[in-house]
Amino acid sequence: MKTVTTLEELFQARSELPSPVGLVPTMGFLHEGHLILMRQAKQTCASVVVSIFVNPTQFGPGEDLESYPRDIEHDLALLEHLGVDLVWLPTPEVMYPPNYQTWVEVSDVTQPLEGSFRPGHFRGVTTVVSKLFNAVRPDVAVFGQKDAQQVAVVKQMTRDLSYPIKIDVVPIVREGDGLALSSRNTYLKKPQRKAATVLYKSLRKAEAAYLEGERRADAIRRIMTDTIAEEPLASVQYVSCADLDTLQELEMITSKALLSMAVYVGQTRLIDNWILQP
Amino acid sequence: MKTVTTLEELFQARSELPSPVGLVPTMGFLHEGHLILMRQAKQTCASVVVSIFVNPTQFGPGEDLESYPRDIEHDLALLEHLGVDLVWLPTPEVMYPPNYQTWVEVSDVTQPLEGSFRPGHFRGVTTVVSKLFNAVRPDVAVFGQKDAQQVAVVKQMTRDLSYPIKIDVVPIVREGDGLALSSRNTYLKKPQRKAATVLYKSLRKAEAAYLEGERRADAIRRIMTDTIAEEPLASVQYVSCADLDTLQELEMITSKALLSMAVYVGQTRLIDNWILQP
Repeated sequence: MKTVTTLEELFQARSELPSPVGLVPTMGFLHEGHLILMRQAKQTCASVVVSIFVNPTQFGPGEDLESYPRDIEHDLALLEHLGVDLVWLPTPEVMYPPNYQTWVEVSDVTQPLEGSFRPGHFRGVTTVVSKLFNAVRPDVAVFGQKDAQQVAVVKQMTRDLSYPIKIDVVPIVREGDGLALSSRNTYLKKPQRKAATVLYKSLRKAEAAYLEGERRADAIRRIMTDTIAEEPLASVQYVSCADLDTLQELEMITSKALLSMAVYVGQTRLIDNWILQP
Repeated sequence: MKTVTTLEELFQARSELPSPVGLVPTMGFLHEGHLILMRQAKQTCASVVVSIFVNPTQFGPGEDLESYPRDIEHDLALLEHLGVDLVWLPTPEVMYPPNYQTWVEVSDVTQPLEGSFRPGHFRGVTTVVSKLFNAVRPDVAVFGQKDAQQVAVVKQMTRDLSYPIKIDVVPIVREGDGLALSSRNTYLKKPQRKAATVLYKSLRKAEAAYLEGERRADAIRRIMTDTIAEEPLASVQYVSCADLDTLQELEMITSKALLSMAVYVGQTRLIDNWILQP
């Protein structure tokens, strides 16, 4: 496994990799949810590149850029063990050199949900993902369904900007009690960790209602809100029942729908989602 | 020489080209100023790709999108004769499919000069050039110095977005009387064609003053303005004496400077420029 930092090192190492090349972009502090992304890439590609970069431009003021958990030694050991070929660890200066002034923006699908509560977040995401795509030139890029809106935004950008890249999406990995794996779970104190299962519970209750025939999106959203309200340590930022591709809120569920939410447990902001299949 | 339209055809044909690959983006209606771009690409690359696309998103309301000259048959004959390997002729629907919503924007170097008189122009340029870079994945891309600000903007974008692409810039090609070649010269009626030499004259007069020791940018700009004012068929939109990289207007000329201008001759808007070497 090769590890590089600068663009020159990356371009050189990339040119020596057999095709097809798979890319897994990450912010590090890797957990099992990341590892299945790498395994997916290994299954379909001759070479796997992993980037680790806590991207400052996708964090808003007051968000957790400084405290975001990092453990590069542990990450590299995991990646070595998985048989990843190339790890790119750019510094902020490599990604955003002095006089940096270029941005990639997706206008519509970035507006609701996360976009409405994290202004500027997706501009940072699409800019950095586009830079990763340009520098690595992968054939396949693998993302996790955990960040459902990010998946929709990256798919839109990939199509709009004519990238010859297949976007592979891998399902959410959950703990035994249903909590979706996330690097931010490390922020949770013990009672909060227990309370955090309420996100998953609310999604399953909503799905149960759907399977019993409920098609009114309002009723589905209310089930999620009411379930979370029963947990005193949790407070809802948003719940959504939206079209899976456009992310526009639905009135009636007639095709694939995305249930999603952001919930504070203490100071920690957690997100989760579930796809309703017709 | 292969000719393709859709992205699928392009990706397939691109994958069969030997590296390094050179790209020459054009809007067609090719003249000798374009042909030296192709020759430059052929000199440094194993394969040459030319794109022909009159990009609607870089034309403002009231600009000449509809009347922009086109002659695909003639263009293809020239390219075949030059030994170009692949020509991509995307339609507007290939480049901007329904629900298109992604833009690449460069913030600072796009503001002055052309950017100030053609709002949105460079957003269209950087978006389409980025799409061409993504789809073709060239090693080298060749641009003409005629569009001096476009060169500065594309260089900034290429660096900022981490493209592994070398930007080659080819000098302006001029008629015997100094008029810079441009597809838009075809708009000029006979007396206008003669009057249009005033752009070049004003640049040479400004250079002559510089060579005699003039370093005050104001004085240099005044020489250009006054020279153009002597031609009754011409009217200045702007003249500039700016830093070659940032395009900020200078007070004193102490390093490489770009003299540039936009001038109306009748209804036709012409641009020209000249680099002062210290």
